[in-house]
Amino acid sequence: MTARGEPSRLLIAVGGNAIHPGDIRGTPEEQVELAARTGESLLPILMRENQVVITHGNGPVVGKILMRQTLARDRVAPMSLDICVAHSQGGIAYLLMQALENALRRAGSPRHVVCLLTQVEVDPADPAFDAPSKPIGYFYGEAEAEEVRASLGWTMREDAGRGWRQVVPSPEPRHIADISLVHAVIESGAVAIAGGGGGIPVVRAPDGARRGLAAVIDKDLSSALMAKVLGLDALFILTAVPRVSLHFGTPRERPLGRVTAGELRAYQREGHFAAGSMGPKVEAAARFVEETGKLAVIAHLDEAEAAVYGDAGTRVHPGSA
Amino acid sequence: MTARGEPSRLLIAVGGNAIHPGDIRGTPEEQVELAARTGESLLPILMRENQVVITHGNGPVVGKILMRQTLARDRVAPMSLDICVAHSQGGIAYLLMQALENALRRAGSPRHVVCLLTQVEVDPADPAFDAPSKPIGYFYGEAEAEEVRASLGWTMREDAGRGWRQVVPSPEPRHIADISLVHAVIESGAVAIAGGGGGIPVVRAPDGARRGLAAVIDKDLSSALMAKVLGLDALFILTAVPRVSLHFGTPRERPLGRVTAGELRAYQREGHFAAGSMGPKVEAAARFVEETGKLAVIAHLDEAEAAVYGDAGTRVHPGSA
Repeated sequence: MTARGEPSRLLIAVGGNAIHPGDIRGTPEEQVELAARTGESLLPILMRENQVVITHGNGPVVGKILMRQTLARDRVAPMSLDICVAHSQGGIAYLLMQALENALRRAGSPRHVVCLLTQVEVDPADPAFDAPSKPIGYFYGEAEAEEVRASLGWTMREDAGRGWRQVVPSPEPRHIADISLVHAVIESGAVAIAGGGGGIPVVRAPDGARRGLAAVIDKDLSSALMAKVLGLDALFILTAVPRVSLHFGTPRERPLGRVTAGELRAYQREGHFAAGSMGPKVEAAARFVEETGKLAVIAHLDEAEAAVYGDAGTRVHPGSA
Repeated sequence: MTARGEPSRLLIAVGGNAIHPGDIRGTPEEQVELAARTGESLLPILMRENQVVITHGNGPVVGKILMRQTLARDRVAPMSLDICVAHSQGGIAYLLMQALENALRRAGSPRHVVCLLTQVEVDPADPAFDAPSKPIGYFYGEAEAEEVRASLGWTMREDAGRGWRQVVPSPEPRHIADISLVHAVIESGAVAIAGGGGGIPVVRAPDGARRGLAAVIDKDLSSALMAKVLGLDALFILTAVPRVSLHFGTPRERPLGRVTAGELRAYQREGHFAAGSMGPKVEAAARFVEETGKLAVIAHLDEAEAAVYGDAGTRVHPGSA
């Protein structure tokens, strides 16, 4: 993108796995260790004069919050999903902020990291509300799923023989609330952590008042919107695989290096990218490049520096198929 | 303090009850309603050109987090207490931010409210770590308390015949991490929500790296420290009673109006203020006034405007006994 060392304005989206193991048994000690690894991986980028916004997923953490409140529901009133997301933003951003600042201090940098709770507005008429489709949280057995459905009113769906999961609407992000504050933070030189878990889902009434609702916004789509509105130079989506692949998980698997947005859209139409995993990342990258004419990269979290300053990852440039 | 309408720089500390009923069965709907009431109460202060930092307690919310994770402990790994506090900061600050912005929008103000996750450093040699004394969370029966002690390693204490509660160290707040950001936010004209639940308790190693630990910092003492370091004009501690009282709860009860810090200290030495409730508020108010020569007020949350612009509450001025 830019020459090595030349400051630029970046959004880096990390997965929920950047601070939590996939398993529900993940301990705080494991979380701190994973966060430290994430901090080390991002450090070379933060040590340069870049303006940086970091967003993060919340899958494993919000899954645990939901499972705990389900198991405790007879004694402790459950929270609504917007509040669960807000809890996960607090917990994850704290560990990430601490890990990033610790890495910076050890490297001699006084740079601050700021955690901003973020609401993201959605359209109450979004068709997603008519057809909840996004699975969240952990798997339940059939009997337990039925109990949860009856007592909490959740929509439960059987998932490919692996058990039952809650499904919720996943509406499009329409507006990042108070985004001027994210702008102010990165202009001040601090690193901003924002938009966690895709943002706390809210709708805005005609009088300007917001209220939360039960939905989960895709964190990569929110990240793409945030990067576009802030006018950033590039979007980096850091995940658990080094590149986007065609024919993923088959003998014909072929990782993608440099592609145009048009080529990526063509592969997308051919059905190469699974809805629950690489699909939203590809969609977010394609959108950002199409709408801004800038660069989006999907790469492994451990290769953050090479994604920004080298040629790691799947690198999506403007252009037709 | 200042003439009505003249801008000033204020810290307002609200209790955990500002967004949550005392009961573990409090629902999200009740939370939203209470937060809206808090928003209406603070609105007249936010509509003026004051610089405002809002801090908040987290008692009921962190109590529910702890109870849920206790009940779910066989299936979902429990969080450490610093992470629990971070979750509560996320959940409470979200509802408070939304309620305050909603009140502002309805009144025609575009003013922003920013939620900053806050770490607060404590001294690892603080004597509080040798003698956990702060009760947190809900009450357990004796058998359940013993199970929790055995499985989670918590220190449990019998509480005046009402059951068993976890007790944790409550060390002194020594340094508000990244407080320059709170300063930057209020200088920008936005309202800052920070220091929730007294702050996420951390210690700092010689290399500057921080790590969380199992403690709860008193939110009023953190608030007093924050107001002092930011050089604010006044500290308002808003709670569920209209004034601090001598002989509280007895036929001789006498509410205090205007007092000097010296007088308040004398009453404190006479043992008028209970450790778990009014004690820390009185200590925080007295410290702030002694260390800054400014005003501290302890008043009812519903009387916020009269506390700032009238003569509501117990008003602590500099001076000897």
